[in-house]
Amino acid sequence: MARALSIVNGNPMFHVRCRPNPSRPCPLVLPYRPLKVTMSCNQSYWTSINADIEAHLKQAITVREPLPVFEPMHHLTFSAPRSTAPALCVAACELVGGHRDQALPAASALHLMHAASFTHRHLPLTESCRPKSTIQHAYGPNMELLIGDALVPSGLELLAKSNDPTQNNSNRILRVMVEITRAIGSQGMIYGQYYEVELCQSDNKGSSHIGEIERLSEKYEGALHACAAACGAILGRGNEEEIEKMRRYGLYIGKIQGLMNRIGSNDKDLKVLVDGLRNLATKELTGFNEAKVEAISSSFESNLIYA
Amino acid sequence: MARALSIVNGNPMFHVRCRPNPSRPCPLVLPYRPLKVTMSCNQSYWTSINADIEAHLKQAITVREPLPVFEPMHHLTFSAPRSTAPALCVAACELVGGHRDQALPAASALHLMHAASFTHRHLPLTESCRPKSTIQHAYGPNMELLIGDALVPSGLELLAKSNDPTQNNSNRILRVMVEITRAIGSQGMIYGQYYEVELCQSDNKGSSHIGEIERLSEKYEGALHACAAACGAILGRGNEEEIEKMRRYGLYIGKIQGLMNRIGSNDKDLKVLVDGLRNLATKELTGFNEAKVEAISSSFESNLIYA
Repeated sequence: MARALSIVNGNPMFHVRCRPNPSRPCPLVLPYRPLKVTMSCNQSYWTSINADIEAHLKQAITVREPLPVFEPMHHLTFSAPRSTAPALCVAACELVGGHRDQALPAASALHLMHAASFTHRHLPLTESCRPKSTIQHAYGPNMELLIGDALVPSGLELLAKSNDPTQNNSNRILRVMVEITRAIGSQGMIYGQYYEVELCQSDNKGSSHIGEIERLSEKYEGALHACAAACGAILGRGNEEEIEKMRRYGLYIGKIQGLMNRIGSNDKDLKVLVDGLRNLATKELTGFNEAKVEAISSSFESNLIYA
Repeated sequence: MARALSIVNGNPMFHVRCRPNPSRPCPLVLPYRPLKVTMSCNQSYWTSINADIEAHLKQAITVREPLPVFEPMHHLTFSAPRSTAPALCVAACELVGGHRDQALPAASALHLMHAASFTHRHLPLTESCRPKSTIQHAYGPNMELLIGDALVPSGLELLAKSNDPTQNNSNRILRVMVEITRAIGSQGMIYGQYYEVELCQSDNKGSSHIGEIERLSEKYEGALHACAAACGAILGRGNEEEIEKMRRYGLYIGKIQGLMNRIGSNDKDLKVLVDGLRNLATKELTGFNEAKVEAISSSFESNLIYA
């Protein structure tokens, strides 16, 4: 039975400094609109991965002393909308023949990176050209700044602690550490956020508009999903070809998500672009175990429909 | 010849939400007052370590594409006041018999963690009970939030990339990664910053005041310096006893710096407390190579004088 799953993580929630002009809203910024993603089959695969990530996170991010720090950290970890990147990390690990447990620390770290970014993108720093956010702030700005700063090291600590010298996996974990720090850094998500601000400020409505949003989606959601899929393949002991196929697959999936979250679903150019990206994504899955390909593709790109 | 070196890193610059009351200023928050630290001898040792860290950072943090992100990142990296923690990391590595190159990536990472914390602590989020900051903001709050978020992954990427499978040092690097992420996280510097806000809000002027500032200094500067010294010893292949001695030494040095930056220099209780901590620090250096002990102790605790 088809079930609807709300995905809100890709929305452009970074607070930007646009020229306030109610009669000419920023072209990039849509209302806080969850995309409907229908999970028509393999819902159990998707659900079981997310349940395992959540269980792993619940063991790591507990409410403990100092309570005034860990209580909001716990809240902001589990109240952040879910990204598909962590689940993709686990699925990629299994696709290359790895065991789920090998990818859970990295997948949990990816959720914490995403939660940190989500928290800081909602800090009420300056005026925004977005419609008034519906996000409820449970804490003041100082606390949300502080907890956002705490989530990134917590995630990377979780990953570093998963090192087990008896498993001879330390080089792989360090490689994943480089992947994640790059994806969330100045050439990845940070650049995407900067570019989002710039686009909003320029208030560009020209013919290249969808191309700019594609570039933004590549830098933000694309970087996170490409990293997630590559990390899963690295941890699952995939070979270099498999790792790069997974990286490209993640990039296409992330771009699709970014585009669909930012552009109205009745946009004809969007449909053409998304269909092209979906085809490219599908091609990257050739050569892998067919049953696993069916599980991953039906969980991700083939079930993205226009809401 | 004695030379004065300004140390401003330990100042409580986190913007806090105090009850504004000009007639009763927050007891914790002193004017933006640099501590004078006289370097009477072994200036060359100190200078050479810092020069090597700076050279390492300059190779890593270059102004490259995307320029709008890397230019402010470069600026905020090199304009942040210097912390003594990175140099302590290198000195501890050499004290246990390691080579300076082994500690430079971790020392550079520690500077980037400190620069990120410094940048976010200056974000003009809410009213502050501190006197108006003299810090010049070269960028707007959105950009400073974004670049602060970029500095932490950049530092940890620098450390992770220093892994060299031929050197068999990956387990040590991952151990250092856990040390650093813990020190800057919810039980270390983040807790210190939270505690600083709480102390300021409670406007406590009772007899336990210096004890509270000692606790705050332990969590903030203490955590960073204890981590730095332990990381240096780990990377220099020190044994567990040496690592723990270095951790305690760093803790005492960090606490001294936090206390001296936060409390007026004519406070009698402060002098007693600092002298006690200095004695404890000195004891941790027994058993190491005497020439190296002289270099490290004269560079750090014995040259801290009341400005």
